[in-house]
Amino acid sequence: MGDRQRRLVLLSQYLVAHPLIQSSLTELSRRFNVAKSTLSEDLWFIKETLEREGLGTVESQVGVQGGIRYVPAIERQVLAETLARWCQRLNEPDRMMSDGFLYMTDLLFNPRWIDPMARLLAARFGDMGIEFVATVETKGIPLAMACAAALGSEVVLLRRDNRLSEGSSLSINYLSGSSHRIQSMSLSRRTSVRGGRVLFVDDFMKAGGTAKAAEDLLLEFDATVCGVGVLVATVEPSEKLVGQFSSCLEWDGTGRSAPVPSEWARVLCESRVGED
Amino acid sequence: MGDRQRRLVLLSQYLVAHPLIQSSLTELSRRFNVAKSTLSEDLWFIKETLEREGLGTVESQVGVQGGIRYVPAIERQVLAETLARWCQRLNEPDRMMSDGFLYMTDLLFNPRWIDPMARLLAARFGDMGIEFVATVETKGIPLAMACAAALGSEVVLLRRDNRLSEGSSLSINYLSGSSHRIQSMSLSRRTSVRGGRVLFVDDFMKAGGTAKAAEDLLLEFDATVCGVGVLVATVEPSEKLVGQFSSCLEWDGTGRSAPVPSEWARVLCESRVGED
Repeated sequence: MGDRQRRLVLLSQYLVAHPLIQSSLTELSRRFNVAKSTLSEDLWFIKETLEREGLGTVESQVGVQGGIRYVPAIERQVLAETLARWCQRLNEPDRMMSDGFLYMTDLLFNPRWIDPMARLLAARFGDMGIEFVATVETKGIPLAMACAAALGSEVVLLRRDNRLSEGSSLSINYLSGSSHRIQSMSLSRRTSVRGGRVLFVDDFMKAGGTAKAAEDLLLEFDATVCGVGVLVATVEPSEKLVGQFSSCLEWDGTGRSAPVPSEWARVLCESRVGED
Repeated sequence: MGDRQRRLVLLSQYLVAHPLIQSSLTELSRRFNVAKSTLSEDLWFIKETLEREGLGTVESQVGVQGGIRYVPAIERQVLAETLARWCQRLNEPDRMMSDGFLYMTDLLFNPRWIDPMARLLAARFGDMGIEFVATVETKGIPLAMACAAALGSEVVLLRRDNRLSEGSSLSINYLSGSSHRIQSMSLSRRTSVRGGRVLFVDDFMKAGGTAKAAEDLLLEFDATVCGVGVLVATVEPSEKLVGQFSSCLEWDGTGRSAPVPSEWARVLCESRVGED
């Protein structure tokens, strides 16, 4: 078995194990102990092979920031199956809580369940130059972390209380759109979000009051919320307090019918752009 | 360029993109449209190539549950560099908070910073048959999710308050070992942790009161805490309220000196077991 075959395995392993991370050709040619011209040929072959199967691509960029990186494709079939499975699980008896919420904690905190949904949202917002993913504690955190990983960004955590361990914070109070209770959220002044482009994510949206408050609070830090993505949104009220949002699943809020994939999510899983 | 080379790229991509997930040979031979004997040869070649470079292995299991899966190696050099970088960042001026805590939220909520630390803990506890990773909200959640992903398990979230959305819960009050305040934590009766083997993780440990309370609460569900892993532990008090724990970093708690990697973490990053 030739050196080239070995190198193809090692290069593929390296690229796939470091998605979205830029590596310089110089670094790689040193790592794999091979001339840059040979390396380029190998990379080209890998790129073509992966692209042909719709598994992603190997991007190369020139210049100081130059280098190559593996950009995984959206696994449409996996995502479609995940959407279907979520709908099925959320329709289990006993998930409907007395206060009009769905019990989802078991799924939200299981990487196998939440990661594909995060990749779905990342695919939706991937081309918007997102620098930060914001969420309010607690149950949206796993979704936010997985989104940040898929987008190569980081999470800005909005706290429910002022915490000693966060130093001085800016807080806002707001009226929850669904419970009509006064809630508050705060963000540490140490945050690096200032001036950034933000995707706000959460597990559940009813009236959108939390998302709206997060937008307002982030605006105080000159940060712009460029997108709002949630796992489940209720159909009613149809007029949410935030202008635009994308939910993976929609739910009538009654427990009489199962949540269903939202239209954009269904379309995204079906579309074959760039694959033909 | 031959079919074999193409297949090696695609198989490597598939294995590395689905770490720890079992695939049957039948499924793979259908997917790659190749005879099982040829597939086995290819897999053997990939396994040998990856093992030789210390990049992990391809495990095969026979029987009903049989199949093959990629088990990534511990990237010792990456982890050693990560440990060093964490120590450096945590030593930045202004991270020392007035109450004896370190400001770490920015790093805890950045996948690039927290994921390798989770892999370090996963390597420490990988052979203990961990079924669940438990944490108390909020700041340990990203570490817990990343640990669960690395261990192929799921997270059990202990809440600070009883939440409507969790249904009925079991709560305990305890005296925080460091702040001497009464705290509480609760776990929904819906949890699937019953009877399970649990790794408890958190971002910070002083006296260990939180970890001890978590152990007690989980015991009420017949779950056994088999390990306690934290990111940073203070040197004092040297007698913690939990028997055994593993912290990635140790800190004298004064801000006069930087946190340092703990001994087991240093040893784990240096050891070359199985590589010679």
